Amino acid sequence: MTDRSAPRPGELRISLPAAFDAGVYFIGSIRTPWQRIDDCPKNTGESDAVCTIELAADYVAGLRDVETCTHLIVLYWMDRAVRDLVVLKPRHYGESRGVFAVRAPTRPNPVAVAVVELVAIDGNILRVRGLDCLDGTPLLDLKPYFASTDSKPAARVGWHEARR
Amino acid sequence: MTDRSAPRPGELRISLPAAFDAGVYFIGSIRTPWQRIDDCPKNTGESDAVCTIELAADYVAGLRDVETCTHLIVLYWMDRAVRDLVVLKPRHYGESRGVFAVRAPTRPNPVAVAVVELVAIDGNILRVRGLDCLDGTPLLDLKPYFASTDSKPAARVGWHEARR
Repeated sequence: MTDRSAPRPGELRISLPAAFDAGVYFIGSIRTPWQRIDDCPKNTGESDAVCTIELAADYVAGLRDVETCTHLIVLYWMDRAVRDLVVLKPRHYGESRGVFAVRAPTRPNPVAVAVVELVAIDGNILRVRGLDCLDGTPLLDLKPYFASTDSKPAARVGWHEARR
Repeated sequence: MTDRSAPRPGELRISLPAAFDAGVYFIGSIRTPWQRIDDCPKNTGESDAVCTIELAADYVAGLRDVETCTHLIVLYWMDRAVRDLVVLKPRHYGESRGVFAVRAPTRPNPVAVAVVELVAIDGNILRVRGLDCLDGTPLLDLKPYFASTDSKPAARVGWHEARR
């Protein structure tokens, strides 16, 4: 998301709180082929590029047993995102949408969720398929993906189906 | 997670950075039937209780179109979690695991991911099924769940299968 000094027509800006309620650590960095916003895939399913997650060395012991997972949930911080818009007009869609109905980086807490296929781990380096973010995006967390609780194949997003 | 003044045997503590890299806002609160850690379900699939998400009034315009989604991704802040352990011995398992191989609240950035079924929305109140957190847990984000990118029914967690 490029910096936006004013909302687009059809968007709604709010005043955010004066202070944060909690803090996050950047625990690594994501390396992707995409240097500019416009180069990024529109979603995590659009590219099958293998990307690299570089976990900071301090956390590497936390990777024990991760190699037994076929898929991971990756949380990352969309550090260029505008945070004070609650109604968006995403660049790909003609209509305004509530921020909680879309996956745009623009949101009060710009924490992205991506489900990735784990290709390989070597030391603190993970190779994964299924990311869509800018090169250099800060990493927040990795979690095992459990099909039993995380996979909902029948889920539907009505507004998205209606536009197709 | 109760406060833990020392790691359990088999756990590994690290020194976290002196400062946070970014901040989050608590944008609402999650109401559940569980007042104590020991009362919480072990995972989001263990209970079918309908829980309530109270979005702060400032953000309610962001719910536009959310009612068309059958399932949501809920991000919340595990505000009682210890953050400096990278190898854990979860209370349900006898073996030490890397923090990134488990879904325990204990992790450097205690952001939980839950996939929930949306039951109803009324104003700033969402009723959902599929949460496992303490009553009063702070809300960070809501996102539409897209089966096309978020559902991986064949995903496997090898260490978890091996213990059964």
